[in-house]
Amino acid sequence: MFEQPANKTELSELGEFGLIRHLTSGIILKNKESKVGVGDDAAVLNFENKDVLISTDMLLEGVHFDLTYTPLKHLGYKAVVVNLSDICAMNGIPKQVTVGIACSNRFPVEALEQLYEGMMLACSNYGVDLVGGDTTSSKAGLIISISVTGSCEPGQAALRSSAKKGDLIVVSGDLGGAYMGLQLLEREKAVFLDSPGAQPDLEGFDYILERQLKPEARLDVIDFLRENDIRPGAMIDISDGLSSELLHISKASGLGCKLYEDKIPIDQSTYDLAREFGLDPTVCALSGGEDYELLFTVSQNDYDKLKNSVLLTIIGHMTDESEGCVMIDKSGGVHDLKAQGWKSF
Amino acid sequence: MFEQPANKTELSELGEFGLIRHLTSGIILKNKESKVGVGDDAAVLNFENKDVLISTDMLLEGVHFDLTYTPLKHLGYKAVVVNLSDICAMNGIPKQVTVGIACSNRFPVEALEQLYEGMMLACSNYGVDLVGGDTTSSKAGLIISISVTGSCEPGQAALRSSAKKGDLIVVSGDLGGAYMGLQLLEREKAVFLDSPGAQPDLEGFDYILERQLKPEARLDVIDFLRENDIRPGAMIDISDGLSSELLHISKASGLGCKLYEDKIPIDQSTYDLAREFGLDPTVCALSGGEDYELLFTVSQNDYDKLKNSVLLTIIGHMTDESEGCVMIDKSGGVHDLKAQGWKSF
Repeated sequence: MFEQPANKTELSELGEFGLIRHLTSGIILKNKESKVGVGDDAAVLNFENKDVLISTDMLLEGVHFDLTYTPLKHLGYKAVVVNLSDICAMNGIPKQVTVGIACSNRFPVEALEQLYEGMMLACSNYGVDLVGGDTTSSKAGLIISISVTGSCEPGQAALRSSAKKGDLIVVSGDLGGAYMGLQLLEREKAVFLDSPGAQPDLEGFDYILERQLKPEARLDVIDFLRENDIRPGAMIDISDGLSSELLHISKASGLGCKLYEDKIPIDQSTYDLAREFGLDPTVCALSGGEDYELLFTVSQNDYDKLKNSVLLTIIGHMTDESEGCVMIDKSGGVHDLKAQGWKSF
Repeated sequence: MFEQPANKTELSELGEFGLIRHLTSGIILKNKESKVGVGDDAAVLNFENKDVLISTDMLLEGVHFDLTYTPLKHLGYKAVVVNLSDICAMNGIPKQVTVGIACSNRFPVEALEQLYEGMMLACSNYGVDLVGGDTTSSKAGLIISISVTGSCEPGQAALRSSAKKGDLIVVSGDLGGAYMGLQLLEREKAVFLDSPGAQPDLEGFDYILERQLKPEARLDVIDFLRENDIRPGAMIDISDGLSSELLHISKASGLGCKLYEDKIPIDQSTYDLAREFGLDPTVCALSGGEDYELLFTVSQNDYDKLKNSVLLTIIGHMTDESEGCVMIDKSGGVHDLKAQGWKSF
C-alpha cells in the first residue's frame, strides 16, 4: 500500500560496519549525560548520581508490525517512542537509546535510511541521543531491538507497586484510538489484497491512524507533574489496554480498584468508528492497547493540582484488595476487570 | 545432536506475563547499583557518579547460532558473556543485563528454562544482575537480544581511539580456538545429516569446543590491569578476528600498527586441528573471531608491569599512520592486514 524507496543500494555494498557508519554518521550528542556514542564497544554515559532507568523492547515484523501499511519512517519513530514511553512510565526523563536492527537482503540501504530517519526524528523531538547502533542480517524479516536509558531523582521512580488505598486513578489523553487505527488498516489491507487496484479509503481518519502509526510518549505529562509538584504513586504506560495495566498496578500494590466507565476518555472519532465496526468503544479502551498513555495514581490531596488539567482525566480510585478490581458501568452495574490485552503467545 | 528437554509445557499455558514471571522468579539482586529489577516498566539503577557503560547485541538462530549443536544452556551462557565482554573491552565492570527473547511455539517452557539457566549461570559467575526480561513470539526461530550496563571511574573508559604511537599491542589468552571449534561442529553436523545414526566424534576436543560453545569474558584481565595500575590506551574485544579488531583500533586512533606473526598466541590443540583441516593457524587467529579475548595497547613504560603475566602476550606495537597496518611473518615478510572477519551481510 505504501511505496518502497525508489533507489536501491544493496546492503552488501556497504557491509556491516560501513552500514552502521553510514546510518549514524550525522549524529551529534546533545545531552550532557551522553559522553561517547556510537562506534565503540559500548556507549559511555554519566548521570551524576541520579537514578538510572533502563528498559528494552523487541519489535518483530509479522508480530508487532505489518510493513504492508506501516511506512518505515513511521515504524522507526514508533519503535523509539514506545521505549521512551517506558521511561516516562517510571516518572523519568529519557536520555539515550541504543538500536539493534536485523534485516534480510531484501531491504535496500534506502529502506534502513527511512527507518533511521524516523528514529532520529523521535530522538530529536524528545531530546534523546542515539548512542549505540548495531545491524545484522536476518533470515526472517525485520527485527528492531531498542534499549532506552533515562534518569530521575534518586528514589523518585514511580513503580507499579506504589499505589495506596484511596489514591485517585488518573489517565492521560484518550484511549482506544490506536486499536481502532489498527482495525481500519487491517480492513483496508483486506480490501487491497482482495482487489489490488483499490486505493485505501483512509480519508478523515487522520487522528485514529496517527494514534496507531505515530504514537507519542507523554513526556509532557511528566513535565506537568513535576511543574505542579505532583508525585505519582504507581505509574504504568498503556501498551496492553487500560484493563490489563490497571490489574498490573492493583496486583503489584496489593490493592483493588474501582473504575467508572463514564469517566474513561474516548475521542469522538474513536467512538464513532468503533460503532461503525460494531465494537463497544469501552471494550476498545479497556483491551485495545498501544495507546501509550500514562496511567497512574495520586493521593487525593493532589486533586486540586490536577483537576483542571486538559492532559488528565480522573477515572476511579484504588480500593482494598478484598473489593476486587471492578468497573462500574454507565447503568451502575459492576463488572470484574479482565486482562484481555494483546497476548503475543 | 543434543537432546531436547523431556517435559514439554506449551508457552501458551503460561502466557507472556506468566512466562517472564516464571523464568525470573528466583532472581535476587546482588549489586548495590541495582535498585529495582524485573517487573516494572524499567529497571532502576544507581552508579554513584561513575561513568555508565551500555551496549546491546542481538543473536539470531540461523545467523549467529545453530541449535543443531548448541545446547540451550550454553547458548544462554554465551549470549550473556559476549555482552559482558563488551563492557570489559571498555575497561569497565559489568553490572546488569536485560534480556529480550523472541521464540515460536515450537519451544516448550522447559527450553526457555534451560536458556535462562545458562544466562543466570553467567550472571552468577560474573557478579551481574539480570534486571529486565521480556519475551515475545517469533515466526522465525529464536532471537535473543541482550543489553548490558556496567561502570568505570569517570574518564577511565578505554576507547578504540586512545592508542598512541609506540604503544605496545597486547592480547589476552590465545586465538583461533573458537573458530576451529565451529569448524569441528560444522563437520560433525554434516556427518550427522549424512547418516543420522552416527555419533559425533568430539572426543579430546574439549578445549576447542568450549572456546566456541562456552567462551568467557576476560574480567580477570580487567582486574589484573587495575591491580597492577596499568591504564590501557585503546581496547577492544576480539569478536571478528584479530586483524579486523586491530584495524578498528588503528583507524580510530589515526595510527598504523606492526604485528609479529610469531608472537600471536595460538593453543597447540588449535594449531593441530587447523593443520588437520588444511587451514593456516595464523589465518584462523587473524580472521576467525569469536574468541572474546581482549586486545589493547599500553604505554611502553608499562612493559615491566605486564611482561611476566601469564594472562597476556605482547604481539606488536602501534606505528605512524604512514607505515600502514602490517604483519611481519615468520620469515620477515611484510603483509598488509585485511579485515576478513565474519561479515553478517
